[in-house]
Amino acid sequence: MNFIIALDIGGTQLRAAVFPPAGITPVAIQKTATRGTEPGVYERLTDLVDSVWPAGPVDAISVAAPGPLNPHTGTVISTPNIPAWKNYPLADLLFKKYKVPAFLGNDANLAAVGEWKYGAGQGHHDVLYLTLSTGIGGGVISGDRLIEGCNGMAAELGHITVLPGGPICTCGFPGHLEAVASGLAIARYVSEQIAEGRSSVLKAGPALDAHAIALAADQGDELAREAFVRAGEFIGQALAEFLHIFNPSIVIFGGGVTQSGRLILDPIESTMKSNVMDKTYLDGLQLVTAKLGDDAGLLGSLAQARIRLSNV
Amino acid sequence: MNFIIALDIGGTQLRAAVFPPAGITPVAIQKTATRGTEPGVYERLTDLVDSVWPAGPVDAISVAAPGPLNPHTGTVISTPNIPAWKNYPLADLLFKKYKVPAFLGNDANLAAVGEWKYGAGQGHHDVLYLTLSTGIGGGVISGDRLIEGCNGMAAELGHITVLPGGPICTCGFPGHLEAVASGLAIARYVSEQIAEGRSSVLKAGPALDAHAIALAADQGDELAREAFVRAGEFIGQALAEFLHIFNPSIVIFGGGVTQSGRLILDPIESTMKSNVMDKTYLDGLQLVTAKLGDDAGLLGSLAQARIRLSNV
Repeated sequence: MNFIIALDIGGTQLRAAVFPPAGITPVAIQKTATRGTEPGVYERLTDLVDSVWPAGPVDAISVAAPGPLNPHTGTVISTPNIPAWKNYPLADLLFKKYKVPAFLGNDANLAAVGEWKYGAGQGHHDVLYLTLSTGIGGGVISGDRLIEGCNGMAAELGHITVLPGGPICTCGFPGHLEAVASGLAIARYVSEQIAEGRSSVLKAGPALDAHAIALAADQGDELAREAFVRAGEFIGQALAEFLHIFNPSIVIFGGGVTQSGRLILDPIESTMKSNVMDKTYLDGLQLVTAKLGDDAGLLGSLAQARIRLSNV
Repeated sequence: MNFIIALDIGGTQLRAAVFPPAGITPVAIQKTATRGTEPGVYERLTDLVDSVWPAGPVDAISVAAPGPLNPHTGTVISTPNIPAWKNYPLADLLFKKYKVPAFLGNDANLAAVGEWKYGAGQGHHDVLYLTLSTGIGGGVISGDRLIEGCNGMAAELGHITVLPGGPICTCGFPGHLEAVASGLAIARYVSEQIAEGRSSVLKAGPALDAHAIALAADQGDELAREAFVRAGEFIGQALAEFLHIFNPSIVIFGGGVTQSGRLILDPIESTMKSNVMDKTYLDGLQLVTAKLGDDAGLLGSLAQARIRLSNV
């Protein structure tokens, strides 16, 4: 094994890291803004790769990007913050330019792989990873393998229906988990309640976010507290379904909303337990928070490359 | 490879078949009632194994049984029609008695494996199998691997919630798919509607089953027809969720209710399509009925043995 270049394509930042043959400490790491006036995102990405390219041989370039994308073909189907990338053959372009294998994976899936290989899920064979952020995403490892599906679009865990006829999700359908329990949904609920006359130290409006609501809850604000409990109950309800579907031995929570701690984890856990149909699902089940933080994407990319190279 | 003995433990019948090293045509097949006055079920099962034991060497005994059970340890946790089997180490008992590897798997999961290897799912890597019978069960193959979970209790697809606060399921929780769309649920719906004064050629009561209702629907009975459409819509709604979770390339429907054909498959398909959040999930997706019929359990057991022996 030689060097691996891991890339993480975020909504605001592109990050690149060079990893040595073993271990998870990068020998180089760089970042740049995802969008600028010039050049385009692909050129910004390759400039970044060029800037970290190591002196020794490179075994692979591995990319984490927001979906939907197809990891089998290495094609970005579409991605929220990069309108120019429609059915965009990113892995193939990188392969042709750099003459090394190039891999592409969904960022939530790769965060799951990163946590499994190098973070909170080490040693487990069946891992459910749920990222609670402005949206809700996930990734599942079952029997030591990432569940990807035939087009790589499996594990869209934020889009399970928990409130039929409920609020419209970012995807356009009503009542999905993401529409009632994401950071955006928590903020929207608080704003709506304030508009209806509920008292709170918080001010309704687009600037309101889950972080501010968590601070208010810590200071005893009843509405803020209720908003997290409500979101946690929906997540716990969905989590019971996921236990019946995947029967994991560990559930890992990542994403910014998780920083609210027990405020959201307690209602998640209690609702999950009261909705699970057989206590065997809870035997030895661990609920933990993610360990890799902002590095989950890069380390998941690294893990993806090492797994795929060992399968060749 | 030598002979493999496959066993299928059903609610009414125990079946045993001996398979040669290649192919799926048994060289011997026998059955007996699951329960009798004497001896116990285990003894009935071993008598059956003895009666088919071949002259040549046996590589493995492989058992399909109703869950919940743990395929990793070979233990039946509990099973509806055999009250004596609680945390019952069936695979271990068979291994000790016959001195050959013994494997145990959930019958719905193994039916999925059987259809994948020898039936309607051949050549696919991502298969969703749904059995619509008195209950609703399922099995999922993802990336050429059966999804089992840490205790072997994954893919309980009949227990996804589709109608919060709805009818109580056999598992005790409200609104699960099985509680509103199984054969029993279809019959219960028709009985309830008749009790409320709806006209139908059918008679309410415990003898009413999905088969009779399908016949009535074929003859133009409006209530019978509506009962299947209603069940199909719930199944289609759940199926859209399963597409988002597993992204299969084929969905295989097994079980007796499937014999009602387009009556239930049409509403399943149309509801699935209108609930799926991205058309990519439908690209090339096949919806088909199972091919193996009553042999799914035995052939799934056979497939399980061949897979596990090749992984040793």
